Amino acid sequence: MEFFQYLPLGEARAKVAASLAGIITGQEALDLPEALGRVAAADITAGEDLPPFSRSSVDGFAVRSADTFGASESVPALLAIVGEIAMGGEAPNTLRPGQAVAIPTGGMLPAGADAVVMIEHTDRPDDATLLVLKVAAPGENVVAKGEDIAAGAVIVGRGQLIAPQHIGILAACGLRTVPVRERPAVAVISSGDELIDIDLTPSGGQIRDINSYSLGAMLTAAGCAVTRQGIVRDDYDDFLAILTKAVAASHLVVISGGSSVGARDYTVKAIGALGTPGVLIHGIAVKPGRPTVFGMVGQVPVFGLPGHPVAAMTVCGQLVRPVVSTLLGEAAAEPYSLPAIITRSVASAPGRDDFINVRLARRDGRYIAEPILGKSGLISTIAQADGVVHIPADKSGLYSGDTVEVLLIKFAQ
Amino acid sequence: MEFFQYLPLGEARAKVAASLAGIITGQEALDLPEALGRVAAADITAGEDLPPFSRSSVDGFAVRSADTFGASESVPALLAIVGEIAMGGEAPNTLRPGQAVAIPTGGMLPAGADAVVMIEHTDRPDDATLLVLKVAAPGENVVAKGEDIAAGAVIVGRGQLIAPQHIGILAACGLRTVPVRERPAVAVISSGDELIDIDLTPSGGQIRDINSYSLGAMLTAAGCAVTRQGIVRDDYDDFLAILTKAVAASHLVVISGGSSVGARDYTVKAIGALGTPGVLIHGIAVKPGRPTVFGMVGQVPVFGLPGHPVAAMTVCGQLVRPVVSTLLGEAAAEPYSLPAIITRSVASAPGRDDFINVRLARRDGRYIAEPILGKSGLISTIAQADGVVHIPADKSGLYSGDTVEVLLIKFAQ
Repeated sequence: MEFFQYLPLGEARAKVAASLAGIITGQEALDLPEALGRVAAADITAGEDLPPFSRSSVDGFAVRSADTFGASESVPALLAIVGEIAMGGEAPNTLRPGQAVAIPTGGMLPAGADAVVMIEHTDRPDDATLLVLKVAAPGENVVAKGEDIAAGAVIVGRGQLIAPQHIGILAACGLRTVPVRERPAVAVISSGDELIDIDLTPSGGQIRDINSYSLGAMLTAAGCAVTRQGIVRDDYDDFLAILTKAVAASHLVVISGGSSVGARDYTVKAIGALGTPGVLIHGIAVKPGRPTVFGMVGQVPVFGLPGHPVAAMTVCGQLVRPVVSTLLGEAAAEPYSLPAIITRSVASAPGRDDFINVRLARRDGRYIAEPILGKSGLISTIAQADGVVHIPADKSGLYSGDTVEVLLIKFAQ
Repeated sequence: MEFFQYLPLGEARAKVAASLAGIITGQEALDLPEALGRVAAADITAGEDLPPFSRSSVDGFAVRSADTFGASESVPALLAIVGEIAMGGEAPNTLRPGQAVAIPTGGMLPAGADAVVMIEHTDRPDDATLLVLKVAAPGENVVAKGEDIAAGAVIVGRGQLIAPQHIGILAACGLRTVPVRERPAVAVISSGDELIDIDLTPSGGQIRDINSYSLGAMLTAAGCAVTRQGIVRDDYDDFLAILTKAVAASHLVVISGGSSVGARDYTVKAIGALGTPGVLIHGIAVKPGRPTVFGMVGQVPVFGLPGHPVAAMTVCGQLVRPVVSTLLGEAAAEPYSLPAIITRSVASAPGRDDFINVRLARRDGRYIAEPILGKSGLISTIAQADGVVHIPADKSGLYSGDTVEVLLIKFAQ
């Protein structure tokens, strides 16, 4: 084990990913509207063609296209109007040569017809007579049976995060229940003798527990079912007891705090005591976020995050969030990043990945990223932030005017 | 009223916005974790300073900085170690000149101390003696009382969408309950004789109701409490009855369908019959989305969206979504758009705003936007889309290789 050696972020990510191979949450079947924001647990296929019949995409007249060949304003094609298709109704008869039927947008094409002439391209000297003023090509103004979705096609892939457009396509195919991954059960624990719950008023050197709320919110937004386990004191037996309970009941355990050396040792010792392989990472070359611990207790990943709220959120976004995606079987998707011009130079130590909070603004059609200054660890710096800029370990900083990639940290990103 | 005249999108947006002036949902008080993703209903201020005491940001020794002036490795300052600050505890005594106390990261500075010397910059020849090897400036390694947040400061502004970092800062300030806007109550109705609910199997010219699910999901993701009212037939009396009920129970009513001339007329007639000012927009110069109706029944905005699922979702995103933001009192925030290179030329008619669905990919460090081809109205085109490209009315199209702005349409955007 590389105790007290700071692991580069890339290696830390790889080690975490390798530890999770094959671990995934169970699945459940949800009523369609409830599946919004969840992850598909299987490839979902269409049972039938969509549309289930060839359909007009305009208001007009269904015709046999061959009957309109050569038609023009000066030499219109003459057809007999033999009826009208009702919306939602079926055409009673096959359309014969020389015939036309009125059809609304969305109406079902009668057998025999292969095109629809828009109403604007017709004249009707009387109720039974149609003059077609323009050639209709085969298939014109028609959506053919199965043209949108063919029976058997995968409409939502396994691992897809289900967005409103997917709810739409699932409805179109009549999929009332949707197999989705269970939300990962995550236990969030804050540790530290100085912490009090937010209902209490601090006295002496006490401060309120921030991390179980902010990390709980991040993990909720990421799709987890979060249980806040409250605050554990700097006492090894208490710590071991609460961690034992959390590991037994959870897919993932996130402890924060223990920035004191003693508490950090408890985290390491307790992870080791609970099972194999135990602690795998102890310290990462990331600012903010260095005192980060990661281990596996059997199949349960356990993170010990820094006590500083900003460092804890940074590591949660960079190391814990990908674990949630893995547990959910989410199809690999890099989060989108926004190119922006940085307004101020920022120094960084080579060999360390830095994350800088920025405010975004729009100027002359481009995004401007303004680093939020302030001592590290001030919660006010992250509360004002719209995004985060990553300075990779091989860079020694950013220059004012550089184009940088901003990872958005707004809700649900 | 400009019946059958297509209103430009910009004017339509302005007309909708003007109709809503001053309309906002009520407020409710939520337990902190429940406030995630909701909109703050008031400026929320800190009741106390944060940190509530001057705090060490390192492990080391609290000192009077004046005692270290001139200290160096060769000429260390000699101080008496008079105790240790416990995490979460209060310093018992005022620090006097020549004294130092051990202090952990996060520990409370004793009265009299104004700096902390890092443990690395000290030597301890015995338990009672400290050698300081480096000058400590006043305030060094200290976060002063109120430096993060001063009592009375606004920590979350009215109209702020509450993200995890805001949950963190609210916890820090002990705000257990948060005043948020009520979710707008939205009634979603699908109309059309051809529609059947998704549980049924279409026969003849029937198709399943897509829009009440896809629009319901979009509006749920936008923060609304959605009630799907199901399908209404092309019958004016039924239509009027369901709309009357919806308007009475909702902040916003969204009807889709009625792409047939008859149904569109019902929508217009019913909005007019229910109250003033009635129909304000009837047709917009947007593709897809032209047959859009908007009106106000007293204080309730009512939209009649196209029946085509893709057109309905496009107009929902462009015209209805901003109404939700207004009802929620959300601080004006343009959605972020991503610059991307478009891979194919797309023609557009001047005078009309076009919206093109695109797939996004990353290539050579830039985003590539590939227009999704297919007849308009196919639900499969939007289900594959990652974003939408807007071609404004004053452009006649896009050229392959142009840089375009992509509005993301993934979940919760």
